[in-house]
Amino acid sequence: MLEDLRAQVLEANLELVRRGLVLYTFGNASGISRAEGLVAIKPSGVPYEGMRPEHLVITDLDGRIVEGALRPSSDLATHLVLYRAFPGIGGVVHTHSRFATAWAQARRPIPCLGTTHADYFRGPVPVTRAMSQREIETAYEANTGEVIARHFAAGDPMQVPAVLVAGHGPFCWGPTAAEAAHNAVILEYVAEMAYYSVTLAEAPSELDPVHLDKHFLRKHGTAAYYGQK
Amino acid sequence: MLEDLRAQVLEANLELVRRGLVLYTFGNASGISRAEGLVAIKPSGVPYEGMRPEHLVITDLDGRIVEGALRPSSDLATHLVLYRAFPGIGGVVHTHSRFATAWAQARRPIPCLGTTHADYFRGPVPVTRAMSQREIETAYEANTGEVIARHFAAGDPMQVPAVLVAGHGPFCWGPTAAEAAHNAVILEYVAEMAYYSVTLAEAPSELDPVHLDKHFLRKHGTAAYYGQK
Amino acid sequence: MLEDLRAQVLEANLELVRRGLVLYTFGNASGISRAEGLVAIKPSGVPYEGMRPEHLVITDLDGRIVEGALRPSSDLATHLVLYRAFPGIGGVVHTHSRFATAWAQARRPIPCLGTTHADYFRGPVPVTRAMSQREIETAYEANTGEVIARHFAAGDPMQVPAVLVAGHGPFCWGPTAAEAAHNAVILEYVAEMAYYSVTLAEAPSELDPVHLDKHFLRKHGTAAYYGQK
Amino acid sequence: MLEDLRAQVLEANLELVRRGLVLYTFGNASGISRAEGLVAIKPSGVPYEGMRPEHLVITDLDGRIVEGALRPSSDLATHLVLYRAFPGIGGVVHTHSRFATAWAQARRPIPCLGTTHADYFRGPVPVTRAMSQREIETAYEANTGEVIARHFAAGDPMQVPAVLVAGHGPFCWGPTAAEAAHNAVILEYVAEMAYYSVTLAEAPSELDPVHLDKHFLRKHGTAAYYGQK
Repeated sequence: MLEDLRAQVLEANLELVRRGLVLYTFGNASGISRAEGLVAIKPSGVPYEGMRPEHLVITDLDGRIVEGALRPSSDLATHLVLYRAFPGIGGVVHTHSRFATAWAQARRPIPCLGTTHADYFRGPVPVTRAMSQREIETAYEANTGEVIARHFAAGDPMQVPAVLVAGHGPFCWGPTAAEAAHNAVILEYVAEMAYYSVTLAEAPSELDPVHLDKHFLRKHGTAAYYGQK
Repeated sequence: MLEDLRAQVLEANLELVRRGLVLYTFGNASGISRAEGLVAIKPSGVPYEGMRPEHLVITDLDGRIVEGALRPSSDLATHLVLYRAFPGIGGVVHTHSRFATAWAQARRPIPCLGTTHADYFRGPVPVTRAMSQREIETAYEANTGEVIARHFAAGDPMQVPAVLVAGHGPFCWGPTAAEAAHNAVILEYVAEMAYYSVTLAEAPSELDPVHLDKHFLRKHGTAAYYGQK
Repeated sequence: MLEDLRAQVLEANLELVRRGLVLYTFGNASGISRAEGLVAIKPSGVPYEGMRPEHLVITDLDGRIVEGALRPSSDLATHLVLYRAFPGIGGVVHTHSRFATAWAQARRPIPCLGTTHADYFRGPVPVTRAMSQREIETAYEANTGEVIARHFAAGDPMQVPAVLVAGHGPFCWGPTAAEAAHNAVILEYVAEMAYYSVTLAEAPSELDPVHLDKHFLRKHGTAAYYGQK
Repeated sequence: MLEDLRAQVLEANLELVRRGLVLYTFGNASGISRAEGLVAIKPSGVPYEGMRPEHLVITDLDGRIVEGALRPSSDLATHLVLYRAFPGIGGVVHTHSRFATAWAQARRPIPCLGTTHADYFRGPVPVTRAMSQREIETAYEANTGEVIARHFAAGDPMQVPAVLVAGHGPFCWGPTAAEAAHNAVILEYVAEMAYYSVTLAEAPSELDPVHLDKHFLRKHGTAAYYGQK
């Protein structure tokens, strides 16, 4: 089981490299085994080239290291808060990918301008509020997760599986680490196109809700008909 | 015959990958044999890597599957409407390529700002009207085709072999699947340059009609003199 | 001699491919042997892959084909006018490279905003006037050259070895085909950076003339000290 | 010792190539052996392909060549001024990378808009004042270094290990040549994202100082906890 989780989390990390979402040791992906309550995450500050399954760090949901010789990603605490807050998710990915981060830095949500966005995110990708001085100075990474979790308190994190942390960058999630990484790649693509659209037409009209739902549901609803079943 | 069509349609799909127009399983190309009234199209949600001619799906012009074990692209109905409405075309391509989609999302036609554009499209690449709630809720993909077809009702779809579906992305066509894919690549290139030109000079003057015709016709007119005959 | 010229002109054409300046069969480079009054130029509409020296077309300065089984680039007449007007040049390159063409389409000269530009071009890269209906309808390609030549009538084409044809794209030149291609690559790079600078600060101040000359002359003056002699 | 320095400086130069920061022979990296007072720097105008350790030029801190058959980079004098002014640095890198240069050309400092920036630079990356005619005409390269050094006279160059020379481009530094090159790559990435953020939201709010320090210090402070110790 953990063998599988390690392999899948490593693969999710490498997908970020292949798609150009990370530079040097930027970014991190993790996955969880809900049955065992254990998380596998990228080690901190280690190059992606040559990374092997045994380099991943296994922790419990309180961040205690269960297996692994390396220190886990410094963003581990953010991941753990998300796993506790969102019971439906199985993987978390954080990157500083160019366009998604640019929107986070501009502190603007990414509006849903088209069907590419609607295929994956049922509405705008939101920006969190800025963090307070107290939240930054103590338990910063855990508080980053709390700010995200509170943002989704009234909503369903599976309808919009991504968020922009203000002045920081995107966090994405999904049923598995692979799907979280996939969502991070799509988010960057959608963020790039929205950048061009918004700079072409300062206030482009958002996709109307009927059109948005049509696309989201033809891929994700109970009667989805995209793909091979 | 169908062997040839399959091979050519597969090749058109792969050209979209090589030129960076599609991400994951995005995009789809099809081709038609007018003699047999049969269409070959990409299967839905299948990775491009490892795609072989036998994975393509053959349907008739009403969308009945004639050959193939996989489900066809979910955009099949759009392609079929275009084949019925535009008797001169032999191939259709749909992508969510970055810049063409950005214009579709901004709901602005791509103005003809230069001779690169004029070499392929005899005037602006238009944007369709937004689709109505009814058109989206029932027979969405067929209605996407109808909105395009009605847009060209008074014109010649071979003079401007591309359109931007509002809030969605580009559809392109041509005498063959290969030429439809070629037009999709050029459209993306022209869309990118027009983006830079428009953001440099908010209202750049369009190419004058004489210049536009000169370039379109030196490539496509009866007295064309570009290329080797 | 012509062997060398063919090889060098082929290499200049391939440099445009390697540097991402051309798409499909776009673009063309030529070179001249002043001693023999003969020009070698890319054939029209032939793919770059597999192009060999014997595919190049040799013409005299009036455009008569002296050697070669293929039709020359449809822009040959523009190249010939430039060779006749600018006796100091040995190579001409035309591309539709993204950023240089975007400036040509915006009909704005590329201002000299920094030392990268000043290292190669002693002042702004100019835009030609628009061509008249008469110039477009008859001898279009030759007239394109004439409009360029007249623009430089009062100046030295070696101080600014490039121009943007309004609504079309860049033409570059140099002492050899290789240097013309090199200038085309630099022009694209400079055009890209100027695009970002101008969109960041609508009216950035141009490099002051002393600074401009310092950089141009440390590379090109009689006392140049850049490079290995 | 010098063997090691040569190898490390060569590697720093090649890192600029691999990361797309330099075109043709643009850019230069150097490193210093403080014990011996000797600097290794890239030769001027030599292609990166095929560059070997013995091609690097060794000079003393006054620019006298101690070893090497080639002429050193024409920017050597700038590097030397920085080594004399900033005793804590071991490497210097200069590039004309696209986005950093665009900010230098726009003569705008790069604001600290997010944590990616804060991870490396403790505040905005500054722009120097324009150089005077006298500074340009005599000892231009040394004066470029003096203008940078004076800018940092009241500050700590290790807190913000980069600067934009107005109308020119970035200079970066670090404890070693490798780290200087690393900073140049990060600077380009940060400059690109800040470009998108600023064009999305003309006056985005800067990261608040508490957040900025948190990120800078979790990587660089005495209690840093990023990476494997």
